[in-house]
Amino acid sequence: MAKRIVIALGGNALGKNLPEQMAAVRHTARAIVDLIEEGHQVVVAHGNGPQVGMINTAMTTLSREDPSHPMAPMSVCTAMSQGYIGYDLQNALREELLDRGIHKPTATILTQVEVDPEDPAFQHPSKPIGTFMTEAEAEEMRRRGNAVMEDAGRGWRRCVASPLPKAIVEIETIRALMDAGQVVIACGGGGIPVFRTGAHHLKGAGAVIDKDFASELLAEALDADALIILTAVEKVAIDFGKPGQKWLDHLTPAQARQYEAEGQFAPGSMLPKVQAAVKFAESKPGRTALITLLEKAKDGIAGRTGTAVSL
Amino acid sequence: MAKRIVIALGGNALGKNLPEQMAAVRHTARAIVDLIEEGHQVVVAHGNGPQVGMINTAMTTLSREDPSHPMAPMSVCTAMSQGYIGYDLQNALREELLDRGIHKPTATILTQVEVDPEDPAFQHPSKPIGTFMTEAEAEEMRRRGNAVMEDAGRGWRRCVASPLPKAIVEIETIRALMDAGQVVIACGGGGIPVFRTGAHHLKGAGAVIDKDFASELLAEALDADALIILTAVEKVAIDFGKPGQKWLDHLTPAQARQYEAEGQFAPGSMLPKVQAAVKFAESKPGRTALITLLEKAKDGIAGRTGTAVSL
Repeated sequence: MAKRIVIALGGNALGKNLPEQMAAVRHTARAIVDLIEEGHQVVVAHGNGPQVGMINTAMTTLSREDPSHPMAPMSVCTAMSQGYIGYDLQNALREELLDRGIHKPTATILTQVEVDPEDPAFQHPSKPIGTFMTEAEAEEMRRRGNAVMEDAGRGWRRCVASPLPKAIVEIETIRALMDAGQVVIACGGGGIPVFRTGAHHLKGAGAVIDKDFASELLAEALDADALIILTAVEKVAIDFGKPGQKWLDHLTPAQARQYEAEGQFAPGSMLPKVQAAVKFAESKPGRTALITLLEKAKDGIAGRTGTAVSL
Repeated sequence: MAKRIVIALGGNALGKNLPEQMAAVRHTARAIVDLIEEGHQVVVAHGNGPQVGMINTAMTTLSREDPSHPMAPMSVCTAMSQGYIGYDLQNALREELLDRGIHKPTATILTQVEVDPEDPAFQHPSKPIGTFMTEAEAEEMRRRGNAVMEDAGRGWRRCVASPLPKAIVEIETIRALMDAGQVVIACGGGGIPVFRTGAHHLKGAGAVIDKDFASELLAEALDADALIILTAVEKVAIDFGKPGQKWLDHLTPAQARQYEAEGQFAPGSMLPKVQAAVKFAESKPGRTALITLLEKAKDGIAGRTGTAVSL
């Protein structure tokens, strides 16, 4: 029953700074290697919220101090974050695999993901990034053409668009390595967002791609059997946090849409996960998306927990 | 006469900042695709001097402003630089290939390179990195346990060790992609320097690996026919810049050692290139290292120019 699985790891689960990341990846690696040990083929995608925020802040600080360095676009910061996270994550996976006597090369593929310049998300930048600012600083940033937003009472932040992923540029590389039995880390931070211009040109986009949607596209493109979307709860719930809260073992796309219409899933949190899961389940018969905790990934794939989304 | 070729690109040739890099990679891609168009299999390695310096400075500035971010070690900065450079370089290669009707996936592999903690280079840090400092700042940095050096009259800089590469951790990934006919960018900045500790653990090393030596090791490990070391002159010279200067078409390892003993090659400049070329030529009969200009790579491989180093 070996399955081909794409795992979507949250950037928040990877820690806010270097020492946190070093600890987080070890914990993460154990859960992923549990799946590999069962014989599954695994490709790992991950978010990069706190990490790309850190890099963006560092690069912005540099260009303030040394104007010979122009501001680094989000695409470049995402490319850097793939190196930053991939390095620790691939080492943790490599070490955990070898500790269990499993020889499988592990590699990080720098991944670009195409987005559509006509995506309506560009009209409504919604993803907060980087450091908090005062209202005055935010006003100044807005005057310079950037979108800003007040972030949950914690201060002002720059925000960027979060368009849907259309195509994974390095898909043939990821597929070749997966077919060769290697463990691949790809689509870090949802991928480096690019527009296609002219005949073949790719141009960095000022955006951040949701890692759950990027992982879903990756899972489709690799003809995966399962997409595991990791989150902070073991199962999806309806009436979450209310009397009558109910954990769901299984969800069909139709039920998910119904609950979504009722406003059961928090935007920016559970909603994109459920939407990505539904998209994957509907993409081809036999495909299952699983939403659960990192620690429950193995049990979830075995059908023992988590919320399975399938036809 | 299709050859398997590893190309070592200089970090300086990639530009000191983002706009410079964007322009430089286009120029670089044309020369590399010239070789691919001739039917050769190409793996590209590159330096990262100015780029890792920029990232190191940005991360240092960040940790000064926000102490929740500890100083980023050189290994982490190198990982980021592989993302930063690989992104632009792989796109330029991809575009140039498609412009010529060649369909070959192009990918950047985050690459770690093992170094020996007993390498004598760790006793003599010699590679200047990051921004220039005043003598007082340098003294402060020295007090905090870092090596510093006065860099050619331009000011003080932090310096790190430049140990020899011992093994390329991701070699199986690079080989699998090369064998699949893909164009691979690997060993960026000479690779992320790591020590092997315990059974399987890899730990970042405070070092920078010379990209010519890393490329040489890569070429050996891939059983390449040729290693092209790009530099700022078309050929290696003896009595360089003096009356009687003589450009060399061919150099045997024995001749190279003779010239090296005479002090013909500048340390930190032509010397490591010649040494890496000699090491490759001696590693197996039939292997040739070529030292030349980027623009002359194709002519050099065809035997028309450059300095060929072979038995």
